[in-house]
Amino acid sequence: MVNRNKNIAKLPGGYLFPEIAKRRKAYEAEHPDAKVISLGIGDTPGPLPTNITAGLVDAARGMGTKEGYCGYPGQGLDELRQLINDRFYNGQFELDEIFISDGAKCDTGRLQTVFGADNKIALQNPAYPVYLDTAVAMGQTGDYDTDSEKFANVCYLDCTPENNFFPDLEPAKSADIIFFCSPNNPTGATATREQLEELVNFAVKNKSTIVFDAAYSAFINSGDMPTSIFEIEGARDVAIEINSFSKFASYTGVRLGWTVIPKDLKFSDGSSVHKDWSRVFNTFFNGTSHITQVGGIAVLKDSGWEESKAMVKFFMANAAKIKATLEAKGLEVYAGENAPYIWVKIPGKSSWETFDYLLHEAQIVCTPGSGFGTAGEGFVRFSAFGTEENVAEACERLTKAFE
Amino acid sequence: MVNRNKNIAKLPGGYLFPEIAKRRKAYEAEHPDAKVISLGIGDTPGPLPTNITAGLVDAARGMGTKEGYCGYPGQGLDELRQLINDRFYNGQFELDEIFISDGAKCDTGRLQTVFGADNKIALQNPAYPVYLDTAVAMGQTGDYDTDSEKFANVCYLDCTPENNFFPDLEPAKSADIIFFCSPNNPTGATATREQLEELVNFAVKNKSTIVFDAAYSAFINSGDMPTSIFEIEGARDVAIEINSFSKFASYTGVRLGWTVIPKDLKFSDGSSVHKDWSRVFNTFFNGTSHITQVGGIAVLKDSGWEESKAMVKFFMANAAKIKATLEAKGLEVYAGENAPYIWVKIPGKSSWETFDYLLHEAQIVCTPGSGFGTAGEGFVRFSAFGTEENVAEACERLTKAFE
Repeated sequence: MVNRNKNIAKLPGGYLFPEIAKRRKAYEAEHPDAKVISLGIGDTPGPLPTNITAGLVDAARGMGTKEGYCGYPGQGLDELRQLINDRFYNGQFELDEIFISDGAKCDTGRLQTVFGADNKIALQNPAYPVYLDTAVAMGQTGDYDTDSEKFANVCYLDCTPENNFFPDLEPAKSADIIFFCSPNNPTGATATREQLEELVNFAVKNKSTIVFDAAYSAFINSGDMPTSIFEIEGARDVAIEINSFSKFASYTGVRLGWTVIPKDLKFSDGSSVHKDWSRVFNTFFNGTSHITQVGGIAVLKDSGWEESKAMVKFFMANAAKIKATLEAKGLEVYAGENAPYIWVKIPGKSSWETFDYLLHEAQIVCTPGSGFGTAGEGFVRFSAFGTEENVAEACERLTKAFE
Repeated sequence: MVNRNKNIAKLPGGYLFPEIAKRRKAYEAEHPDAKVISLGIGDTPGPLPTNITAGLVDAARGMGTKEGYCGYPGQGLDELRQLINDRFYNGQFELDEIFISDGAKCDTGRLQTVFGADNKIALQNPAYPVYLDTAVAMGQTGDYDTDSEKFANVCYLDCTPENNFFPDLEPAKSADIIFFCSPNNPTGATATREQLEELVNFAVKNKSTIVFDAAYSAFINSGDMPTSIFEIEGARDVAIEINSFSKFASYTGVRLGWTVIPKDLKFSDGSSVHKDWSRVFNTFFNGTSHITQVGGIAVLKDSGWEESKAMVKFFMANAAKIKATLEAKGLEVYAGENAPYIWVKIPGKSSWETFDYLLHEAQIVCTPGSGFGTAGEGFVRFSAFGTEENVAEACERLTKAFE
């Protein structure tokens, strides 16, 4: 029979969110009357607003007409790529540097396929699990050490209250690739312009390539915080940027994202990253649903963009409520101002203990910080992606649970 | 900078279909008045029929309502998986053995990520390029040899008129994985029950795992030809099946497929393929657009299924016309009866010579057989996915071109 992939075998346990779903399901099976509220996985509650929905409906209806029908989608609709270029990058890219995808997670995986096994990654600790898990699967890491709860041959960059969640970059000196997410998932920390300049300068000097995850950039309120790594001089030579419609357009179920691969970016042998990315993109992927893409155009046109901004504002109001509730209980609370996540330290409890406590005592699902890395132990993440009603109810329950 | 993946570096040239698109574009740029007709890439001409379109429209509209909204799609809608189970497998699978995807190409890539580098593949020659290209990218092969136009450490199973396009399996003895596509792309050859029994028995005896690509199964007219590998006894222990809505539902632009991973299937160390596949599916992918999935339900319900069968019938009528046209010119013509492809040998010309000849002399795009493997040299593939008008016009032009 086919041999097991020794790299997949290195991955411990399940992916974080299925594990959370499993525990929630088990609780609900035992307590069929419980009304569980999720502030866990960053899933959007919907529904989609009027103009964005209309874009999707028109596209779907168009597939039944000669004029509106579309076959294989390829790299993406020019109109969509132009709108992304204008809204997010001041039009600085050529359209064929922007690739339309079915989401940031999928593009992260495809990037790792491009990179292959002969690279070493650095990543924030804690971090979105997909950077590390895909690196492990591709054979970039050594084995998992159950004592340290870390993989060999990975540079972990601790992000803690002590360093204001911006890491010391020195441990990344041996890294070829630096995954960096700002606004951060899970900590909600958002890097300032100076910090991103430090990051880019480090990458230039250290000859590292940055994979910048900007999936939460639309949640930045402060003008001092760049919404793209490409606002920083020199970034085009050292960075790739991944972004997603999932959160700012409530598109988690529609599946739309994009990746920018500047043509200036080279491998260590001088060859073009853009060229290999194109090859992998065309070989491992067949493009993003035409309906989804036309829906994306509707999001980025003025009327949909206003709707999207209103959704972001709404989620940030949720974040403010959750943050205020937890602060009122005297807890150590971080972020929630430029990101839809609140990061909280619960004294004397492990992350999973707090998770189980809140599930059982308050019927609230949060996300255990330790699921994002060792530096997340003791923290939990609350997501602002709830309905007004659920967030109000959750805040009441949290007030009681932390009495 | 990040190091180039040495396995990606092994891949020669571009992926076949972008190369075809490039030559077509160059011709059209030089001949702006030419009306080029494509019988090349198997892209569907549309539009979608009424009930299938209505399913997509309803799903899109639903995303704007509280009841119809859906976030992260996960492994797939139960209703869709149940319909697939009933329509294609007589309900023989548990629902969690069926994974809903954004297409057969993407699932092929994810399967290779599951398998990793330590396996050797066998594949039909010629074959859909994605099996081999993804195997190369994952490091399963040796280098490309420009003389033989083959990769080291790959078992090529020649499919030629001499063996009626069913290969001698002996060269697959050293293979861990056998990719097998029936009805075949590109040759259109469709395996009989006896032939698939031979394949399954070989896999059992040889301890190989079959990846069976059934993307064209809906085009089978003959009752003697299985539409799934799981019609063959013992297949659940040795086979995975990939399928797609792209062709039978004209869904190339909607993006929907599925993969069946039987829980009986094990790696050589006895561990579960289903478990590792689930891990990779959740880590490298975030599910298929909800709108697309609801559209898939519309395809498989009775009214949509009738529409789909009518489309298949229409494409097969195209195939019959193209086949008759070419046969009337005395050419060596294969398939086109249980598959939407016609496979033709053009005497005294290489595949790309015929491609260029037809593009320049008849403004027709076909697909060069050599792009699918060495055993395809001298052949070209005609696809039946055209409109009635285009196919009629194409047949006239072909009649003249082969005078």
